[in-house]
Amino acid sequence: MKKHNFSAGPSILPQEVLQKAAQAVLDFNDSGLSLLEISHRSKDFVAVMDEARSLALELLGLTGKGYQALFLHGGASLEFLMVPYNLMTKAGKAAYLETGTWAVGAIKEAKAFGETVVVASSKDANFNYIPKGYSIPGDADYFHCTSNNTIFGTQMTEFPDVDMPLVCDMSSDIFSRELDFSKFGMIYAGAQKNMGPAGVTLVVIKEEILGKTGRSIPNMLNLQQHIEKESMYNTPPVFATYASLLTLQWLKNLGGISAIEKQNNAKAELLYAEIDRNPLFKGTAVKEDRSKMNVCFLLEDESKTEAFDNLWKAAGISGLAGHRSVGGYRASIYNALPIQSVQVLVDAMKEFERTA
Amino acid sequence: MKKHNFSAGPSILPQEVLQKAAQAVLDFNDSGLSLLEISHRSKDFVAVMDEARSLALELLGLTGKGYQALFLHGGASLEFLMVPYNLMTKAGKAAYLETGTWAVGAIKEAKAFGETVVVASSKDANFNYIPKGYSIPGDADYFHCTSNNTIFGTQMTEFPDVDMPLVCDMSSDIFSRELDFSKFGMIYAGAQKNMGPAGVTLVVIKEEILGKTGRSIPNMLNLQQHIEKESMYNTPPVFATYASLLTLQWLKNLGGISAIEKQNNAKAELLYAEIDRNPLFKGTAVKEDRSKMNVCFLLEDESKTEAFDNLWKAAGISGLAGHRSVGGYRASIYNALPIQSVQVLVDAMKEFERTA
Repeated sequence: MKKHNFSAGPSILPQEVLQKAAQAVLDFNDSGLSLLEISHRSKDFVAVMDEARSLALELLGLTGKGYQALFLHGGASLEFLMVPYNLMTKAGKAAYLETGTWAVGAIKEAKAFGETVVVASSKDANFNYIPKGYSIPGDADYFHCTSNNTIFGTQMTEFPDVDMPLVCDMSSDIFSRELDFSKFGMIYAGAQKNMGPAGVTLVVIKEEILGKTGRSIPNMLNLQQHIEKESMYNTPPVFATYASLLTLQWLKNLGGISAIEKQNNAKAELLYAEIDRNPLFKGTAVKEDRSKMNVCFLLEDESKTEAFDNLWKAAGISGLAGHRSVGGYRASIYNALPIQSVQVLVDAMKEFERTA
Repeated sequence: MKKHNFSAGPSILPQEVLQKAAQAVLDFNDSGLSLLEISHRSKDFVAVMDEARSLALELLGLTGKGYQALFLHGGASLEFLMVPYNLMTKAGKAAYLETGTWAVGAIKEAKAFGETVVVASSKDANFNYIPKGYSIPGDADYFHCTSNNTIFGTQMTEFPDVDMPLVCDMSSDIFSRELDFSKFGMIYAGAQKNMGPAGVTLVVIKEEILGKTGRSIPNMLNLQQHIEKESMYNTPPVFATYASLLTLQWLKNLGGISAIEKQNNAKAELLYAEIDRNPLFKGTAVKEDRSKMNVCFLLEDESKTEAFDNLWKAAGISGLAGHRSVGGYRASIYNALPIQSVQVLVDAMKEFERTA
């Protein structure tokens, strides 16, 4: 039985992506060589990198709007450092919205560089909501936020209008919903939720915001260097980039972000409706800020944990355990998760109500 | 026909590694899930990371000697930066040996941190030899060298005895020959030559040399952080780490470094003997410094290039073009390349002598 994979990341990828990626490990493009053993400067791989970069911009509606897409090493955590290196001026400051563990990590790295203002935080309620009504210092070099909080199951639906670059960590909801992406100066995302396997990070950057810090930036952390070298400053993470391209092609063939957003809305509605209806469960995030990617919920009666766990495991569900800082359950319902899997979970919850 | 793959990197991997890696992309450990879609905190992947770390130390003879092995993002190029961040004191200095393009890159990053002394360079002869008889300032925080120069086909056979940490970029000859690895304070290597696919970097570090710089180090660049988090400070490059483990297992089953070194010596002797015997070819590196990993050679008469290229391509050889900064040919004969492939190349060179 194929599992119903609710893992928070690395997470489910489309079956056809897995099949094509496995084939490329054996023989890439009928070349007689594996994708793993060819030069990254070979015609075949340069074509992969070029298509991945242009397709990412195309899907986000950013083609021809002064943006560059890069597929880099390091994970989003390295971007926590690259953001201030590339965008915070020597005497300047940065503004951050604190909505969860990853925002905290980003803020920590920025503080080592210069004045870092936390404009608002939901730490007071274990990050179960998105702060609103905050004000951002007009002289900040940039404003940084996290669009979706994987651990706490909250998601931003509105982004402030600011006169400075808007920087967003979209690791766990990139390519999942339509937004005006041209509002953002920089978007970054570790691949391992909606885009591909772990080991590569997408950075989308508006070129005009770079080169203004007066800082000397180490080469590997310098976005201008990576742009100049067409995302091959050093040997890129070849396999993870290729698997990401396959996932972007799958998304395009499906109809792009607008098509997947409809599916994601349907999945989220189905699951939240059951959480709200079923008296045995309760959601952890404030309703208006609920994430459509990570659905966090608890049992009303924790003593029934083992019984419920046995039930969903028997249904072929995996990856449902909540993060230790929230407890309970977290159903990650990323792009590649079919609504049928959500239905299996909902059915298990209903069954639990009947039998518990 | 399976190609004879002389690519300089990413480069040939053992066939059984490719098969097992492809299988894991479809179904990992008969779990019903792909390696690409499971949590890096899952029992199955934690076991991969743990075994990769301990097997790397075992193969290098460093188990129980105060070393830690890490599998990190970023490539060796990020280590160019992490070395001074983690080892250069605030008021201190570093000493570097300049033996090629990658050494130049490492020196450039170090210079941005503090006084960086280049103790010797072979730049005067396009890096075709390894400088000797240099002296290293006794007050340097560390001495950095590059054991094998992929582009220029030279390799260090002796390493200086120093009272400071000896740091070595072994990207292109790690696991290829026996050395007293306990001489080194830090060894690092991008995986994509002898260890695995692109996208992961091995760092072997003697713990006692860390924590002495007085610098504030960003988390993602802090080796102590990575050690504390058991090489999972953030989501690691899962697939590249797993494929590296498979390659290390293959090497262990073969008999370890001492066994592969014999094969590597035989391959290098076979090819260099033909270069020296055949009047149509000449090696580019000084004989005593010739690399056993990257064999660089030229045609005596460049007008015959097309004829020779046609001949080796017809023999099923790929990846033989020299780097643009040297020209001619480069046969990379890494661990996974069978001696039969070297024989095919030697036969092509002999055939060329008969027919050219």
